[in-house]
Amino acid sequence: MLRKNSIVVPRGFLTASCNCGIKRKKLDLVLFFSEVPASCAGVFTTNRVKAAPVILSQKIVRRGFVRGIVANSGNANALTGKEGIEDAKKIIRFFSHALGIREDELLIASTGVIGIRLPVKKIISKAEFLVKSLSSDAESFVNSAMAIMTTDSFYKLRSEKVKTKNGDFSILGIAKGAGMICPQMATMLCFIFTDADASPSTLKKVLRDAVENSFNRITVDGDRSTNDTVFILSNGKSGISIDDPKIREIFSKSLKNICMGLAEDIVRDGEGATKIFSVHVIGAKNNEMAKKIAYSVANSLLVKTAVYGGEPNYGRIAASVGASGVRFDQFRLKIWVNDKLVVSEGKMLSLKRDKSFLRKKIDFKIEVGNGKGEAVVFSSDLTPEYVRLNAGYMS
Amino acid sequence: MLRKNSIVVPRGFLTASCNCGIKRKKLDLVLFFSEVPASCAGVFTTNRVKAAPVILSQKIVRRGFVRGIVANSGNANALTGKEGIEDAKKIIRFFSHALGIREDELLIASTGVIGIRLPVKKIISKAEFLVKSLSSDAESFVNSAMAIMTTDSFYKLRSEKVKTKNGDFSILGIAKGAGMICPQMATMLCFIFTDADASPSTLKKVLRDAVENSFNRITVDGDRSTNDTVFILSNGKSGISIDDPKIREIFSKSLKNICMGLAEDIVRDGEGATKIFSVHVIGAKNNEMAKKIAYSVANSLLVKTAVYGGEPNYGRIAASVGASGVRFDQFRLKIWVNDKLVVSEGKMLSLKRDKSFLRKKIDFKIEVGNGKGEAVVFSSDLTPEYVRLNAGYMS
Repeated sequence: MLRKNSIVVPRGFLTASCNCGIKRKKLDLVLFFSEVPASCAGVFTTNRVKAAPVILSQKIVRRGFVRGIVANSGNANALTGKEGIEDAKKIIRFFSHALGIREDELLIASTGVIGIRLPVKKIISKAEFLVKSLSSDAESFVNSAMAIMTTDSFYKLRSEKVKTKNGDFSILGIAKGAGMICPQMATMLCFIFTDADASPSTLKKVLRDAVENSFNRITVDGDRSTNDTVFILSNGKSGISIDDPKIREIFSKSLKNICMGLAEDIVRDGEGATKIFSVHVIGAKNNEMAKKIAYSVANSLLVKTAVYGGEPNYGRIAASVGASGVRFDQFRLKIWVNDKLVVSEGKMLSLKRDKSFLRKKIDFKIEVGNGKGEAVVFSSDLTPEYVRLNAGYMS
Repeated sequence: MLRKNSIVVPRGFLTASCNCGIKRKKLDLVLFFSEVPASCAGVFTTNRVKAAPVILSQKIVRRGFVRGIVANSGNANALTGKEGIEDAKKIIRFFSHALGIREDELLIASTGVIGIRLPVKKIISKAEFLVKSLSSDAESFVNSAMAIMTTDSFYKLRSEKVKTKNGDFSILGIAKGAGMICPQMATMLCFIFTDADASPSTLKKVLRDAVENSFNRITVDGDRSTNDTVFILSNGKSGISIDDPKIREIFSKSLKNICMGLAEDIVRDGEGATKIFSVHVIGAKNNEMAKKIAYSVANSLLVKTAVYGGEPNYGRIAASVGASGVRFDQFRLKIWVNDKLVVSEGKMLSLKRDKSFLRKKIDFKIEVGNGKGEAVVFSSDLTPEYVRLNAGYMS
């Protein structure tokens, strides 16, 4: 969340949002448009059950160039069979016609309840209105960030203006949260816009790298909901090309900032979450092994409830390291909580309640003594409120 | 749980239990003894962080013959370093001397809080008393089943007398629960006694088979706490040998019954659980793939909370099948809830609330259309009560 006057909208991008009746009153439909064709890249869920918009957008994004994105919240258009795909195609058709572009120039995304057909008529009835309402105002982008929210309690928007020797470019990203962090299937959407210039293949590379080091560090095994989607559109309006290696490095760093910021917002807004924690694994055989251990700890229900309760159940951390499937010598295991060594040589050093364990953000560091592999994963606590929210929410 | 008068105690086994002061008042120390040397076999946690009693018992069980087991609850003797191993050795030494047996004839197990040294003096001070109190009464075995409980709300004991053409043999098993089911690290202990006759190698085979089809179907990736242990002792007092293939088959079936009964008791007694559910996967490429899918569904937080809430969020089941990492065609996926088809051809058939989804036991069946692989896994719901229990419990 940024103050609206500090938001930087990349040149040549417009957006508009409205309520079309999927939700009762809240914004639930949004359109993004680039004045000129934009290079595009996408990262999609690895779930074998993919929502209709994911199936379609994966094809569209392969062309490398699009003009915009149409998205709705409140209904995921997932588990809707062949009919769901026809529904999404119809929406693309109406919106692309209203925009005066080709049907293969518009990406589509949905998030919300699974298993119900989209109210296509309601959605397409708003096509003309949204096209007329397109605006490059910061406020429009804030509204669009709100229009993709489901159980999120605040909108997620990050932007940066970056100066280079050849001039400046901007990046703006909006995201919606993954409900709780790491449930393998809560939907995460993220749309990123930049006026830097890039070939689709370069864009794909920098996007994958940024996602791997941000969103893929807060959800388990990559993104695994039926709908998870990250899009980036680059329209070149700044005249700054990231195909220049030096600029690419600057761009890549800025994109990672944006993605990490949005990822942190998502963790902070985990359903029912009261605390967040990081798991930093060092000394693993390689980075992959370190990541495996970090996920095992970050996803452990007993660790998550211990963080919630504030009880120094450090044994649970050690047990979840041991349950990761990675081999190590338990007598060389070391664990720090907020920089205080609590487990060493296979032995718990203290069971005393430590005030730092009551903080809103807790850092675990784990050394397994196998090599130089390293990884960090972010997670949130498990609370009775999470259970209550998910026991009732139809998704 | 059985009525005490229906409990069958295998010939030649004795037990005694007491409070030694680990817990305030409840039983927390138990001794089992066979009048004659018994063949033994064990299955242990695959967690890389193993408690001291696990490290020691793994060595002892390799000899193939023991006379008994000493076990305590309330303290896991895990993450206690080399000192923890010395503590366990000291306990074995005192109890084996009191019993008049060799030190390598006594197995040891612990369950409870991680990271605190055992009160060895308190434990060994009870050695003489327990040896004097040894009894073959059904009531003694019930007390011993209670003495290994931690957060369990009821004791778990199953026994069977089996008639064969050569006479009869009995099997009796006691277990303590794994807290919640599938948290990868809640401790499960199970001690099984039989007066059938078996070589250690045969015993190992039938035990592994029974565990794979019972306890390993209720916890994820095998048993992964720091302390999980299953022991079987076979003293041959019945004169019926399971090295005879026909008898072995009868024995194996009975052992599976005992194990499955105890496993069901553990699921039913999951921490804070209000409902249990089974996940039956069919049509996978092979059984291994079916098991992988079944675990993905059984462990999904969103499925567990949906079962708790009773809302027909069948999309979550489909999404957790898709997140399993197993390849399949989503348009061939079928899901039944309590024998009612709810997902077919990648499409949700109904979102209406179904009364059968409010039952205390729910059955999911999933067909992925890849082959003939099949698996069943049992799980329990996730409740606010689970979070509350684990936020406070020092383990």
